[in-house]
Formats: sequence, C-alpha cells, structure tokens
Amino acid sequence: MSLLVVGSVAFDSVKTPFGEVDEVLGGSATYFSTAASYFTNVSIVAVVGTDFPDKHLLFLKSRRIDIEGIEKKEGRTFRWKGEYGYELNEARTLDTQLNVFQAFKPKLPEKYKDKKVVFLANIDPDLQREVLQQVKEPALVACDTMNFWIGGKKGPLLETLKLVDILLINDGEARELSGEPNLVKAANIILSYGPKTLIIKRGEYGALMFSGKKVFAAPAYPLESVFDPTGAGDCFAGGFMGYLANTMNFQEANIRKAIIFGSVMASYNVEAFSLDRIKSLDYSEIEDRYMEFKKLTHFDDLG
Amino acid sequence: MSLLVVGSVAFDSVKTPFGEVDEVLGGSATYFSTAASYFTNVSIVAVVGTDFPDKHLLFLKSRRIDIEGIEKKEGRTFRWKGEYGYELNEARTLDTQLNVFQAFKPKLPEKYKDKKVVFLANIDPDLQREVLQQVKEPALVACDTMNFWIGGKKGPLLETLKLVDILLINDGEARELSGEPNLVKAANIILSYGPKTLIIKRGEYGALMFSGKKVFAAPAYPLESVFDPTGAGDCFAGGFMGYLANTMNFQEANIRKAIIFGSVMASYNVEAFSLDRIKSLDYSEIEDRYMEFKKLTHFDDLG
Repeated sequence: MSLLVVGSVAFDSVKTPFGEVDEVLGGSATYFSTAASYFTNVSIVAVVGTDFPDKHLLFLKSRRIDIEGIEKKEGRTFRWKGEYGYELNEARTLDTQLNVFQAFKPKLPEKYKDKKVVFLANIDPDLQREVLQQVKEPALVACDTMNFWIGGKKGPLLETLKLVDILLINDGEARELSGEPNLVKAANIILSYGPKTLIIKRGEYGALMFSGKKVFAAPAYPLESVFDPTGAGDCFAGGFMGYLANTMNFQEANIRKAIIFGSVMASYNVEAFSLDRIKSLDYSEIEDRYMEFKKLTHFDDLG
Repeated sequence: MSLLVVGSVAFDSVKTPFGEVDEVLGGSATYFSTAASYFTNVSIVAVVGTDFPDKHLLFLKSRRIDIEGIEKKEGRTFRWKGEYGYELNEARTLDTQLNVFQAFKPKLPEKYKDKKVVFLANIDPDLQREVLQQVKEPALVACDTMNFWIGGKKGPLLETLKLVDILLINDGEARELSGEPNLVKAANIILSYGPKTLIIKRGEYGALMFSGKKVFAAPAYPLESVFDPTGAGDCFAGGFMGYLANTMNFQEANIRKAIIFGSVMASYNVEAFSLDRIKSLDYSEIEDRYMEFKKLTHFDDLG
C-alpha cells in the first residue's frame, strides 16, 4: 500500500567536525520519502521555489516517489543552515529561511486522496490537519512535531494529536509536551491526548515505544563514524512508516519490527552528508543491518 | 563459587527532588555485595571507623556476606554527601570525607586468597593491584574506576587494566580514558589496554558491551519513579558479577545474561534511598524483571 507524506523539501547547509556542505538536498519529506522508498511507493506533498533544480526531482522520481504533490512556486526554496559539535547530538541552527514554505497551503492531487497511510512531518499543526482532512479514509496516521509548535501552538497541536495513531518525537519534546520529566509518566500523559502509540527518539541512545501498557526499547546501531546526523529522525520515520505501509499490519509486534527498520535507515543516513548514503542502498544491506540489530540486542532466556 | 570485592563502606547523605537522607549506609562495596548476595556468597575487603554501628555489619552478615575482611580502624568512617537535580543523571558532590579510607591498606584474610572471582570497585588503582596480588589464582577479574583516577593516576590505572578481564565504566569515563569521543572507537582503544570485555554504563540509557568484535546493547528498565540513583552502578556490577560467579561461565552469551541481571539490580536499587529496596528482594522479583527485560527488547526475526 502506498504512503503519503507532507513535509519540507529544502536546501541544507551543514557543518560537522568532519566536513561541510552547502545547499545540498534536504528537508523532512525528502529524507522520509527516500528512506520509505525501499519499502513502498511514496507520494510527497510539499512546496519548492523556482530555484529548485530538476535533477533533485528526477532523483526522487528514480526512487519511485510520486512528486505530483510537490508544488513549484514563484520564489526561493526553504533553506536551513546548521552546525554540529563533536558530540553530534544536537544541531545549532545558524539560519532558517522559510521562503516559499512560509505561505505553504498543502493541496492534495486527486489521486493522493485515497492514500491509506499518512505521515505528517514536522510542520504547523494546523497544516497537518488541513492535509489530513483531504484524505478520505486513512487507515494509519502518524506525525512528528517540534518544540517550536509545542511552545507556540499547543492548542492546534493537541487538536492534531486527537486524529493521530502514532506520534514520533524526541525525548526533550516528550518532556515539554507533557510537562513531566520522567519519560514513563510523560508517555502516559501523551497517550491520553489521543495517539495509541508514542515513539520517543533518543538519537544515539535509540528509541522507546509506548503502546497501551507495552514498552519496547530499541538501541541505536553503534557506529564507528557518525558523519552527519541531519535527517536521521526523518529517515527513522521513513523506514518505520514504509515498513508499516508495505505490510499493512499495525499490530504491536509489527510496530516493533518497523522501529528496527527505522533504526536501520537512520543508522545508514548518518554515515554521510545529505542523502549520499541512503540514496543507493541495496535492500540486502537493510536486511543485513536488521540482523545486526538482532545480534546486538539478543540475550538468552532464564535457565 | 564465591566472589571477592574490595571497595568502600560508607555513610551517604543524599538529597534528591523527592526527599533526603542523612548518613545512611552506602559505599561501593556495600551496594555491590548486597546486589551480588542474591546470586552467590560474597566476601568484602574494606575499612570502617569506630563510629560504624554493628547493625550495619549484622545486616551484611544476614545477607550471607563475609565481613571478616572489613577492618575497623580508629577514626571516622568514609562519608559522602551529594545532591541530584530533576534529571537524576549525575550527582553533584557536596562533601567527601575520606577519613579512615585515606590510609586504607587492604589486607586479605587467609581464606579470601583462594577466591576465584574478584571485583575491584572504584578505588586507587595501586590499591586495586595490591588486592589482586594477594589473590592466588583468580579466574575472573573485573574492575571499575572513575575520572579522578583517569586524570590523576593514569599510569597505575593502565597497569591495573593489564591484569583485568572486564572493565565497567560509564560513557564519560570511556571517552576520557581513551581520548576518543566516538564510543565504538573508544571501546577498541580501551580493549587494547588489556581487558577482554568492556562494559559501558549509560545510566537511564542502559549499558553497552564490547567484547572482541561483538557488541551488546541493553536498555535500562523504564521506571515510573526513580527515587535515588546512588549506588546504581555498583548494584549493576554486583548483579553482573554475582551471576557470573554463580554460574562460573564467562562466555560472551553468559556475559549478556549477566548484564541483564546487573540491569535488574540497578533498576530495583534506584526505586528507594540507600539499600532500602534491594536489601529484601525475593529472588522471584529478580526473575520477573529479567523476563520484563526480555519483553522490553524482543522483536521478531525477518520474514
């Protein structure tokens, strides 16, 4: 089954202790859809400016990603500039230029309205709902958000959360959204807002899933060289949702597998700048790393 | 098989956002041996002052811990005072009084010298070696250390590490000891110093094991209320070494199980001040939580 994502398509300029790149392809919808494309067909809703080169659109098409929903508008494409220190855990934003993204009014092409699996990447929660309202009968809806919306648009965000099955956020966001420092308590509060499942992304420490009374902890893959963490969370979401959309099995046991596939995609993504590593993986590499996660976490039963 | 530990027996004064206690029983050897006592017999080498009450010694004895190696010396017992903020991840030390611990010269009772499994808790690396030299034929030696010794006594510490099978430290210590921010690279450097296995404790994020080319990641147990983290690392080590001493199987697969038992003991310990939670567990509670760890980390194979 194919997957719909709304989010940003952008130019990123990134500096890490290991190098720097200028105006490379980035954005949440770009990372998400590229990661998801290894599992299922993906359709993007986004906006770019007239400066956005065809080669990037051709790349997305080459990964069986439907770009009909990427609107080209007079003006410049969204730009983000950030920098990471040696710890590589959090970017320092140096510059954000919303450009054409500022007046983004997502409008779904007719053929997108029948999509069953929807991911609302980190955009204004009002826009998230506008997208969702255009989808006729979604079977699974997941979303991301960030501190900016938790702090500035909590009301609209809570409205969105009522309509969402799975929320994916990081630990700082979970604490801020719930007003509770303990993550287990924070998760229970957030689940009371609507989502049936909460996935807390913890960067180099992996991810935690809370679903009803069940909890699942997945480690991050221990990498010898982390080059650029930009897009890791979106690749996690892409692998996660791509696997769910492909299997159309939303049971808790399958959500666990999807979390591992998300972790696999995030771990590949951080090995290079931009989409350089994840744009041309073999599916066997994804399966190999899934098996590595099994070895990484396995321990024997009692007795 | 019984287990030998050298470390501190102390009075702790601790303040957390949830309460405070004054001069309660603490110290690395105390936490370690109490946790280990659920798995095997333990013998302590330590020093206390004349102010140390018999009730604490009686408590240790009641947990089948051999206290013949606890020397009582003229003077006051080691005291530590610390405070935790809401994040509960690192203590702020307010006061340290070494007292009788300052001139500690560990001397093993004759019957201790045949012990096969040895844990050198976080003390001066020269003392760690002095203890080890008194043990006739150790089959497994593990040790802990801290930034204070890495910074101030790196030479002696490296001498100790040549004699050690397993090193247990936290992530900050691993980075400082190796001079390398990436934990995978740091682990490879540290393994070149002598230990066959390195276990990196990451508090609320669990533990990582590096052994040859193998890596194991264990999560921490997600707790709804963490009351006081004091002694968690020592209880981890106690559960870990206690299980290994009981099974006398030092294969990598059994080390993984030992790490889970260590995680179980640490998770119980943080639920209360001092030894209040771990002093009277049922072994069935330990097994139950081991099984909870299985549910927490399990995911299905591919296909």
